[in-house]
Amino acid sequence: MTTGTVYGLGLGPGAADLMSVRADRLLRAATHVAYFRKAGRAGQARQIVQGLIPEGAVEFPMEYPVTTEIPLDDPRYNQIMSAFYADCTAHLQALAQGGADVVVLCEGDPFFYGSFMHLYTRLNGVVPVEIVPGITGMSAAWTASGAPITWGDDILTVLPGTLPEDTLVEGITGADALVVMKMGRHLPKLRRALDRAGRLAEAWLVEYAAMPNQRVTRLTEYAGETAPYFSILLLHGRGRRP
Amino acid sequence: MTTGTVYGLGLGPGAADLMSVRADRLLRAATHVAYFRKAGRAGQARQIVQGLIPEGAVEFPMEYPVTTEIPLDDPRYNQIMSAFYADCTAHLQALAQGGADVVVLCEGDPFFYGSFMHLYTRLNGVVPVEIVPGITGMSAAWTASGAPITWGDDILTVLPGTLPEDTLVEGITGADALVVMKMGRHLPKLRRALDRAGRLAEAWLVEYAAMPNQRVTRLTEYAGETAPYFSILLLHGRGRRP
Repeated sequence: MTTGTVYGLGLGPGAADLMSVRADRLLRAATHVAYFRKAGRAGQARQIVQGLIPEGAVEFPMEYPVTTEIPLDDPRYNQIMSAFYADCTAHLQALAQGGADVVVLCEGDPFFYGSFMHLYTRLNGVVPVEIVPGITGMSAAWTASGAPITWGDDILTVLPGTLPEDTLVEGITGADALVVMKMGRHLPKLRRALDRAGRLAEAWLVEYAAMPNQRVTRLTEYAGETAPYFSILLLHGRGRRP
Repeated sequence: MTTGTVYGLGLGPGAADLMSVRADRLLRAATHVAYFRKAGRAGQARQIVQGLIPEGAVEFPMEYPVTTEIPLDDPRYNQIMSAFYADCTAHLQALAQGGADVVVLCEGDPFFYGSFMHLYTRLNGVVPVEIVPGITGMSAAWTASGAPITWGDDILTVLPGTLPEDTLVEGITGADALVVMKMGRHLPKLRRALDRAGRLAEAWLVEYAAMPNQRVTRLTEYAGETAPYFSILLLHGRGRRP
């Protein structure tokens, strides 16, 4: 019996037709499909592929035991998540060792933030693992904004909104073009950091990029105290443009 | 008569099946296909779609009047390139106003560096323009490297290798994860900058990511004085990994 392959499948930003041709082909031939989701939710990755999974394929939802209930710097967070990733890994490994290929759905690009990498590092070298890159959420966000993000010699900086305010100010100051990921409930801190860096007026907030409810708003005109989880903040570069 | 649409089509990093399903569909229905290329060359974008352009489609190669013959800071560079982009724009505009849809092939993602944005800013508001985002070359590079680029709260910095050495050192120092684009003949300067920032030993050089001649080498073991144009340098992030 041949060992199966675990595929980390980049689904892209959220529209099914922004998946790569390769991902689409693997998905439509899948017999086992795994994905992360918050307990009690459908899961964003699973929703993107609604209608594309072959009938009879076995689904394996991997439900996060915690999301924001425990602070990231609490040692229990690492313990609980580590045990969870180990469980998921054991299941995928058993499937592959039993000869099955398994497709793991990954929002955006599997190696750019995201959860699959925690399974990847555990599976790699044990069973065959292949990564299919995907269009990132940030690409969809700057596309939605209607303006290029980087020109000429622009430096692009990508900051997680979870960082401390002073670190954000430093990152914003050194950037020509800026992307802030994972910003949702960190918006008030981010507003302060942009203001301190003197770039608040340039900022755009993109919600649900590439999805039907996509919305692009100047941050200074955005009324919300926080933003949805799938929000990305952008400052466009100002480089050479003949 | 309805005005046609100009599509900025992200082709992704270089493998035809890493194009999005949307790009693939638009391309296979195209009647007019435009692309940039160096004079006398086939052009990388055109090569990616070899065999996918419908028979009878009209091709419009846009040949750069200069590439590296004139320094970027010479005022003649901007004059020549500006006139070139204006010519290309006039042609695409005329096609769209004549009722034709035009697909413009863009390597990677159209709004992430690249030349199409110079046509976009000239066409936008004049005729309908739509952007199809693509998988970036850097996503293909970190996929090729076999290791995730960003974890947890990692900051990602993207630097054009064309920047001065001191600016590179500063950018490398502030980054957790790093991508250097446009590095080819700037490799010696980049080696010095990485060394000064104390991160030379961590650097990986990826040539021709996602293409048949893809190669991943530790920079300290890379013999070349310069690297091919389609090379990307990576430093992987070291963030939280439960």
